[in-house]
Amino acid sequence: MLADKLSNKQMVYLTRRERFNAAHKLWVAEWSEEKNIEWFGKCANRNWHGHNYDLYVTVKGKPDPITGFVMDVKDLSRIIKEAIIEKVDHCNLNLDVPFIPIGMQPTTENLAILFWQQLEPHIKGCELHCIKLWETENIYVEYFGE
Amino acid sequence: MLADKLSNKQMVYLTRRERFNAAHKLWVAEWSEEKNIEWFGKCANRNWHGHNYDLYVTVKGKPDPITGFVMDVKDLSRIIKEAIIEKVDHCNLNLDVPFIPIGMQPTTENLAILFWQQLEPHIKGCELHCIKLWETENIYVEYFGE
Amino acid sequence: MLADKLSNKQMVYLTRRERFNAAHKLWVAEWSEEKNIEWFGKCANRNWHGHNYDLYVTVKGKPDPITGFVMDVKDLSRIIKEAIIEKVDHCNLNLDVPFIPIGMQPTTENLAILFWQQLEPHIKGCELHCIKLWETENIYVEYFGE
Amino acid sequence: MLADKLSNKQMVYLTRRERFNAAHKLWVAEWSEEKNIEWFGKCANRNWHGHNYDLYVTVKGKPDPITGFVMDVKDLSRIIKEAIIEKVDHCNLNLDVPFIPIGMQPTTENLAILFWQQLEPHIKGCELHCIKLWETENIYVEYFGE
Amino acid sequence: MLADKLSNKQMVYLTRRERFNAAHKLWVAEWSEEKNIEWFGKCANRNWHGHNYDLYVTVKGKPDPITGFVMDVKDLSRIIKEAIIEKVDHCNLNLDVPFIPIGMQPTTENLAILFWQQLEPHIKGCELHCIKLWETENIYVEYFGE
Amino acid sequence: MLADKLSNKQMVYLTRRERFNAAHKLWVAEWSEEKNIEWFGKCANRNWHGHNYDLYVTVKGKPDPITGFVMDVKDLSRIIKEAIIEKVDHCNLNLDVPFIPIGMQPTTENLAILFWQQLEPHIKGCELHCIKLWETENIYVEYFGE
Repeated sequence: MLADKLSNKQMVYLTRRERFNAAHKLWVAEWSEEKNIEWFGKCANRNWHGHNYDLYVTVKGKPDPITGFVMDVKDLSRIIKEAIIEKVDHCNLNLDVPFIPIGMQPTTENLAILFWQQLEPHIKGCELHCIKLWETENIYVEYFGE
Repeated sequence: MLADKLSNKQMVYLTRRERFNAAHKLWVAEWSEEKNIEWFGKCANRNWHGHNYDLYVTVKGKPDPITGFVMDVKDLSRIIKEAIIEKVDHCNLNLDVPFIPIGMQPTTENLAILFWQQLEPHIKGCELHCIKLWETENIYVEYFGE
Repeated sequence: MLADKLSNKQMVYLTRRERFNAAHKLWVAEWSEEKNIEWFGKCANRNWHGHNYDLYVTVKGKPDPITGFVMDVKDLSRIIKEAIIEKVDHCNLNLDVPFIPIGMQPTTENLAILFWQQLEPHIKGCELHCIKLWETENIYVEYFGE
Repeated sequence: MLADKLSNKQMVYLTRRERFNAAHKLWVAEWSEEKNIEWFGKCANRNWHGHNYDLYVTVKGKPDPITGFVMDVKDLSRIIKEAIIEKVDHCNLNLDVPFIPIGMQPTTENLAILFWQQLEPHIKGCELHCIKLWETENIYVEYFGE
Repeated sequence: MLADKLSNKQMVYLTRRERFNAAHKLWVAEWSEEKNIEWFGKCANRNWHGHNYDLYVTVKGKPDPITGFVMDVKDLSRIIKEAIIEKVDHCNLNLDVPFIPIGMQPTTENLAILFWQQLEPHIKGCELHCIKLWETENIYVEYFGE
Repeated sequence: MLADKLSNKQMVYLTRRERFNAAHKLWVAEWSEEKNIEWFGKCANRNWHGHNYDLYVTVKGKPDPITGFVMDVKDLSRIIKEAIIEKVDHCNLNLDVPFIPIGMQPTTENLAILFWQQLEPHIKGCELHCIKLWETENIYVEYFGE
């Protein structure tokens, strides 16, 4: 059998990148403007700023012995788009996104956790392993559901 | 003389990259919401969206025979920051930037022209040649002052 | 008038990137296998090889005084996809593409010229300026219709 | 002793990138053309398509106290080229590669496992840790021999 | 409470990139020139060579329930600059850096371990997780303090 | 004839990238150390620093009607390596390179002009068009032999 040509150690991690553009600001409603600016600097600009975000989603599983797929990467792309991208792309992360609670800071850290929660129920036949989110070319976070 | 080791054809183009993050939307005040969305799609979202912009500024001139510099690239970096980056970084391009007229669409095209106008008076001893502005990894514009 | 805030020098170059993946080989039918391999090396492998191509299309024009667009970049993307990407993506450039003559080598050089011919009739209201095509991270060509 | 200047915790992961270009298609011989296209879409084009692949190989070990090397990265490069790149570069992954069984789908997942099997016997003095293979800028897999 | 909107699994990994340029050579003082060149090749050139290094520092922790920060990334940037970048940027790694012992090879492997030692005492409120250092686009190492 | 399928406008620009790593410093021998540091800052560090340089060489010409090549890109690669890369890679640009006059500052500007002079005599059958040299991800120069 073909599958025998592979070792029985076959755990593979498959990653798909999607992208979105969004506005946000960091602002704690209970704080004064001075304290917000002291803590968040330019990120507290009341008229918002924004980013091009790069989102990498990793799933893990064994390749199907016939198709060689851990998961059809076109399906993975579609699921990421439906569960996340369509809800955040060209949006205001503080105001427009149903799954981001009003008042929660839309930091890269919090976004990664919330994206996991949105995506995890839709991954079938393999396991969600990592959400990696780049905010700029110099900053990214990773979340593994731990 | 050392300069003789170079040909007398010595026009060199020197480019410096700077970056900024900003929010904007595309919205013509005289148009209905329907018409704005018909023309600008997601870019007309009333709560804004944003981008990481990459700005490449090119100057042209002959290298100084002693220093080998068309222009000190640290000076070029400082001038770009003072004339442009400090005024647009972490800002709302529709609302916050003195040199972007209220009502002018902050498209990448218009930004490139306006950035040239801001920068050009500050370039001494060589010539401003090009403003190149990336809005996403798939879109950029160039403006040569023509 | 808003347009007066810009100088009357307003020629802007707008670029859109699209991507495709394709197979090809370099092989002159009139030559022996030996001569093909002597000239084209590994690129003459009879069972094909392939690339991820990056295509940058540049148009030039003046931004519309209302919209700030040289051309709606979503339209430009759609036109590139219809005229080029849909005909070459996941294809064999020697066998599958109607606008690549049988027997013409699908080199990056020839592709750039042929892509210009496909695209040029569809660009309205501004001018096609450049086709830039990357074959690998180390090789690209540019064609300006000259 | 110099080594004492480092802590005794000295496990370092060293990665080397190599690249290759290849053609392939996804096609299950036992399936009809319709079923192949239904499952694999454009990837089932009978005349092949292709990619620029980026291969990152990671080994782990303690740096030698004299040379500071986990492994001479030039040796690692040579081994990757001999064991993998020379056998797949400018080839057809379905037809030309002795270590890819006929009929096994040359998906990125299966390639990563097969590359590990090829490479692992040649890594001496440290341990193979990861094969990471990019198929496009949006898709990659990782395999850790688990 | 807002924090309840997140799961209680909240371990997030935050990464910041900084860059520096430096000269170095690989040279064992106890060896002859012949042996140095035999082992290190061009890297043993007595007049040095150099690199643009890309340094990625990863910390892990739970986002603060108010600010959404694992750590203020501006603080992380400042700490990396003070502990590492200011001591190595535009320097000679064999001669100029107090924390690199004379005679220790400034390989990417050894640098990663030494950078961890410099940085670790300054990370407060979360944990240093990884030092990732790129020497060229084809070579990087990772060190996790193991 | 096949060539007729292309327009008679067939000027194509072909670019090849090569890379090298080198040490240098900026230092005018006739100046005091103070003046050197005042002008060149960290770049005047007496013990050198270094860079990973990216060199893009562009030639222009009409594709051969049989091969579709402006120039065999493997030949272009070989010529760049022989004329430039082998003389500068892993070298000290102030001390080691015969074609860089002692005392001339090895700025990116001067390097581009000198590289053109080295390369131009070896380009046959088409024309050298541009030398583009990246010193860091934020700085590059271009030289067109003007």
